Amino acid sequence: MVGYVVSCGRLTMEFPERMTIQSHTITVVPRYAETDKGGVIHHSVYPVWFEMGRTELLRANGVAYRDLEAAGIFFVVVELRIKYRRPAFYDQPLTLETTCSNVTAGKVEHTYRLTQPETGVLLAEGASILACVDAQGKIRRIPKFLYLDQE
Amino acid sequence: MVGYVVSCGRLTMEFPERMTIQSHTITVVPRYAETDKGGVIHHSVYPVWFEMGRTELLRANGVAYRDLEAAGIFFVVVELRIKYRRPAFYDQPLTLETTCSNVTAGKVEHTYRLTQPETGVLLAEGASILACVDAQGKIRRIPKFLYLDQE
Amino acid sequence: MVGYVVSCGRLTMEFPERMTIQSHTITVVPRYAETDKGGVIHHSVYPVWFEMGRTELLRANGVAYRDLEAAGIFFVVVELRIKYRRPAFYDQPLTLETTCSNVTAGKVEHTYRLTQPETGVLLAEGASILACVDAQGKIRRIPKFLYLDQE
Amino acid sequence: MVGYVVSCGRLTMEFPERMTIQSHTITVVPRYAETDKGGVIHHSVYPVWFEMGRTELLRANGVAYRDLEAAGIFFVVVELRIKYRRPAFYDQPLTLETTCSNVTAGKVEHTYRLTQPETGVLLAEGASILACVDAQGKIRRIPKFLYLDQE
Repeated sequence: MVGYVVSCGRLTMEFPERMTIQSHTITVVPRYAETDKGGVIHHSVYPVWFEMGRTELLRANGVAYRDLEAAGIFFVVVELRIKYRRPAFYDQPLTLETTCSNVTAGKVEHTYRLTQPETGVLLAEGASILACVDAQGKIRRIPKFLYLDQE
Repeated sequence: MVGYVVSCGRLTMEFPERMTIQSHTITVVPRYAETDKGGVIHHSVYPVWFEMGRTELLRANGVAYRDLEAAGIFFVVVELRIKYRRPAFYDQPLTLETTCSNVTAGKVEHTYRLTQPETGVLLAEGASILACVDAQGKIRRIPKFLYLDQE
Repeated sequence: MVGYVVSCGRLTMEFPERMTIQSHTITVVPRYAETDKGGVIHHSVYPVWFEMGRTELLRANGVAYRDLEAAGIFFVVVELRIKYRRPAFYDQPLTLETTCSNVTAGKVEHTYRLTQPETGVLLAEGASILACVDAQGKIRRIPKFLYLDQE
Repeated sequence: MVGYVVSCGRLTMEFPERMTIQSHTITVVPRYAETDKGGVIHHSVYPVWFEMGRTELLRANGVAYRDLEAAGIFFVVVELRIKYRRPAFYDQPLTLETTCSNVTAGKVEHTYRLTQPETGVLLAEGASILACVDAQGKIRRIPKFLYLDQE
């Protein structure tokens, strides 16, 4: 089976035919610099973790996001929602589950669940919508190989 | 008119009777460190700006948030929503309007509008819900003096 | 007096003949997101402030750093030294003095002094060396108009 | 052999007798949020990585830094030096070697080497000096169990 080939200038890249893995889990260890004077992780850090979750979900599907950008395919966040249920603390590992819930020609939707590894207690949950732009920031269609294979 | 007095250990602080200003506008100049390799401001920076907007809205009402924390009154973000409509760029000043839309015993709601100063073009809009906790992180009632005066 | 003209693709920009102002002072108000669980400003924030100091020193000389980058002139930090003498705190304004101490074809040197506005007490001091690169990250000579006028 | 016991309020913690491991290596994967519009990792991120390196060196010695803080032992950076030799890029893993070069009653010194894993090419090197403070930020002696065992 031949993958999806993208040409961008002198660069030619081959990507998988379709995305087949819909959910992926990573462990995040909160850094000291991510804490605030309230003694907890600052709420602006969660979008950074969610982005790491998306990167690793993509990698689990055989695609490095940096290769997408090298091929002129950029994703930008157009909508973000987060519910913070319990605080996260410095150096206490967290489980982040990232799920790609929908992909169309115009947008990619993800949901996120941040939990305590031992107890499964939910600390935060979120959702995001991404759009696809080219290197000039102009909206473009999402390449078919990034669709979820839902046969 | 006597203000609202809070005692916290040996510390006694006096705050205004009520909040009277509902909306406040600040100018934000995006920093180089806030950009990303896509050439725009990273989406995780907007919550930081929104927090600055809340701080200045509070200050316009005569209250420094740092004094609230010194008096044992902490606010934590429990919900955040952002729609990113157009990118923001390094060193291009932005207008951020922060509005306190509702205050109850249990939560404070704000909305945010980020626009281009010259054109008024909307770059992003958002909303947040804050809860009030004590120095131990335990949920507490929001002090009455932080309610909006809506007579 | 005609300024220094830089052409970059279809873009033509005019910059001043020389830098004439060597020191510039700005006020920095530490953000909540810049604090850490120790209750002070995290040490990694100071380089961000120093960069803001450089930007404003350049602007005081009539040059916007974003225009330099648009003209293909990028500066990168190659060396940084900071001495942290006393902590900085959330929402307590600071005075940052940035001085351009030397410019040669190969590097620009700055020093920084962060003080308390009322007392003049020194909180931190630093120094940096910048090199000049083109849009591809290749080392290039520093344009003459960025030299200090020291007649 | 009994470890070093620290009492802090109702809390009693046991730490190892001495530090025995002087150098420790971790892998750092640069995040998207850590890039800047120059296409590289922003220089203010390196101190954050160095701090992670110290945390993991300490952990390799059997001590969690968060336990030190819980026991009233805080470390603050009083001096930092970094030489940036080559840029670091998004999602390209780095090797960070952190070495504790000296510990006295008044300070801890570390050095850092950031290299490319495959080639060993040096990207950056640094050094820091930490002082020890109590929960009130007052300078205190560094506990003996944090000294390097150099018999």
